[in-house]
Amino acid sequence: MPAAVLTALHAQRVWDRCDALGRLSELPGGLTRVFLSPQQRDANRLVLAWMEEAGMRAHVDAMGNCVGRYEGAAPGLPCLMLGSHLDTVRDAGKYDGMLGVVSAIECVAALHATGTRLPFAIEIVGFGDEEGVRFGSTLLGSRAVAGTFDAALLDKADAAGMTMRAALAAFGLDPDAVAAVARRPDQVLAYAELHIEQGPVLESVGLPVGVVTAINGGNRFMVELTGMAGHAGTVPMGLRRDALATAAECVLAAERIAAGMPDVVATVGRIEALPGAMNVIPGKATFSLDVRAPTDAKRGVAVAAIRAEFAAIAQRRGVGQAVAPLWEAKTAPCAPALQQQFAAAIAGEGLRVHHLPSGAGHDGMAIIDIAPIGMLFVRCEGGISHNPAEAVTLEDVATGVRVLARFILAFTPPARS
Amino acid sequence: MPAAVLTALHAQRVWDRCDALGRLSELPGGLTRVFLSPQQRDANRLVLAWMEEAGMRAHVDAMGNCVGRYEGAAPGLPCLMLGSHLDTVRDAGKYDGMLGVVSAIECVAALHATGTRLPFAIEIVGFGDEEGVRFGSTLLGSRAVAGTFDAALLDKADAAGMTMRAALAAFGLDPDAVAAVARRPDQVLAYAELHIEQGPVLESVGLPVGVVTAINGGNRFMVELTGMAGHAGTVPMGLRRDALATAAECVLAAERIAAGMPDVVATVGRIEALPGAMNVIPGKATFSLDVRAPTDAKRGVAVAAIRAEFAAIAQRRGVGQAVAPLWEAKTAPCAPALQQQFAAAIAGEGLRVHHLPSGAGHDGMAIIDIAPIGMLFVRCEGGISHNPAEAVTLEDVATGVRVLARFILAFTPPARS
Repeated sequence: MPAAVLTALHAQRVWDRCDALGRLSELPGGLTRVFLSPQQRDANRLVLAWMEEAGMRAHVDAMGNCVGRYEGAAPGLPCLMLGSHLDTVRDAGKYDGMLGVVSAIECVAALHATGTRLPFAIEIVGFGDEEGVRFGSTLLGSRAVAGTFDAALLDKADAAGMTMRAALAAFGLDPDAVAAVARRPDQVLAYAELHIEQGPVLESVGLPVGVVTAINGGNRFMVELTGMAGHAGTVPMGLRRDALATAAECVLAAERIAAGMPDVVATVGRIEALPGAMNVIPGKATFSLDVRAPTDAKRGVAVAAIRAEFAAIAQRRGVGQAVAPLWEAKTAPCAPALQQQFAAAIAGEGLRVHHLPSGAGHDGMAIIDIAPIGMLFVRCEGGISHNPAEAVTLEDVATGVRVLARFILAFTPPARS
Repeated sequence: MPAAVLTALHAQRVWDRCDALGRLSELPGGLTRVFLSPQQRDANRLVLAWMEEAGMRAHVDAMGNCVGRYEGAAPGLPCLMLGSHLDTVRDAGKYDGMLGVVSAIECVAALHATGTRLPFAIEIVGFGDEEGVRFGSTLLGSRAVAGTFDAALLDKADAAGMTMRAALAAFGLDPDAVAAVARRPDQVLAYAELHIEQGPVLESVGLPVGVVTAINGGNRFMVELTGMAGHAGTVPMGLRRDALATAAECVLAAERIAAGMPDVVATVGRIEALPGAMNVIPGKATFSLDVRAPTDAKRGVAVAAIRAEFAAIAQRRGVGQAVAPLWEAKTAPCAPALQQQFAAAIAGEGLRVHHLPSGAGHDGMAIIDIAPIGMLFVRCEGGISHNPAEAVTLEDVATGVRVLARFILAFTPPARS
């Protein structure tokens, strides 16, 4: 009875629950909730209660993830896994992560209220750590579920010197049981996540929701340019080897190359000129480069083009160049079958279907190791996220929850390779 | 007897005296000698002795300048003033300033040794402060001589909290007598200074000396750009208002406009992107701009062109722009007659004459208020200055001193306007 399930959805409750979770913060007047904190304990308590109210069996696993299970037509069926994360960055908004967990619970509540059982189980996971704020390593909760958690991280300490192992124990968990959190691929038919976009695309196209094509892979580099310092007044323009002017040309080259490739982005977020005096031609300049793309092939092409251009610019200006790779993440593509099912659910709401990549990282990057992944983005105001100003509308939340419910009701497990 | 005077010059003595002054430093293993310091007292003692040895009457004036006078054919004639400064920047080289003072003394020593008297007096001033390191205000010595010293500066304190007034008194000088240091225009026929180039032009044209056309005027601005911060992964290139990319375009515009105007230079020495995270599109960027030109008209054109281009770039990118003027200095043109006399002196050495502007500031910027000014540049290695690596060759010093002596011997007072 799809219509009855949709009718049973209650967007205001989703809204209120985001507010409730948003109040569980280590900072008064802001929102900061990190892995294994007292605030996470409070959040888990609320989420477990909501899961149980929605007819699920719920528990906190050995990694601190909140896990709820709603059986299908028969007990013990493989599951469609839904979820998102319950931790936050410092001074966060109250929708990043939380909206996905609470929306999924709302969908299951509607199934429960209408007595609907599906030919698969549903599990919802509220991941305990995705942002990586406390231990400087991201996706801890979803990596544990995917069986890719690196046990060496248990000995990593937070800023206060407490190891993850000690923090898990203090939270009442058994660090030696983390490995047992891992799911087998045959237990999980697919993973689907609703999340705010954290970017301005849906707002710019005037749509409340969109289908994610991939969680973009990325590269980060630090580039160091070495020219020749000199007196700003005495060295003619033609005799300069200005490291900052060289960097400026690189910044524009990265921008131009990315702009010329659909869905590729390149960002220079940090820059420094040395010695950094107003009357001295910079002899040295350093800047960061962050490149992301929805396929690894496209990213490879973009990075190669940008690096070749940097080298050409530096050479033409007689400036030395050193490029240090800092980080790389592979693309996590969303399964085409799940994209189609999300698209059908959106069309079912009478909305135009818009596809877009996710430039930010999400738990699906870890879960893809055990199951196909799909994501639904909900429009957020001004593309603002990781900020107390993060905002959505109740109407968009209602649309997002309805699309997620339609997706669940029509869910067909994708073929596995 | 010009030939005899030239023969009496002793470049090695100039070299050794620069070494001797270079050892008078508040830092061991470097050179830092600031206004009214114990090291300046030691330097003045040496310079006074050298002046007296060269047949001059010498004293330290109320501003701490070392002043020596060599009478002309009759006592009390108006003078050709020669000189440069005896203070240094922090961690300085040993030729900036000092070479000009010591070279002038060498020329007078040769006049004295050959019994040569000219139809004008010669005064040499070793200015006590040009760099402005101690009190943050430059040209203190030459402004006192020009009668433009601002007495309000007497109450300015150094980093240790000591006022200039107290520092003068501690040096054994009478702060209330500073005004009496001022010379009248009818006492000074012209001011001529030998100085290292502090830039790479003479090296690039393969000449030991060059005639300065003007001490360039300059402007400094701080530019602040306000775009929109955003997630480096989630905001497509076409929806960005990147403050740093805007700044990069401005840096290149300033470079291009200056390069298109002979003898104009523009430098961005400082830059900052905010928030300054590798994964955040900069919402704000600030940078400095320093523009110099050998005429005020040319400088006005360059500044206007650069500012118009900045405004156009910011507008096209939807980025806000605020430009704060920080500093302005007018051009101090070298008198054409003195340029011609220096050119003749260079040609007398059988050298090609090269004219170039001075991008750095010099005491002539102050003395121009009472007399026409002229300058002779001596090639320095790699254009490096304000640095312990500052270097000249003995051969170039010899050439510079000979050219200065030829200039003095043939000196004709320029017509005064």
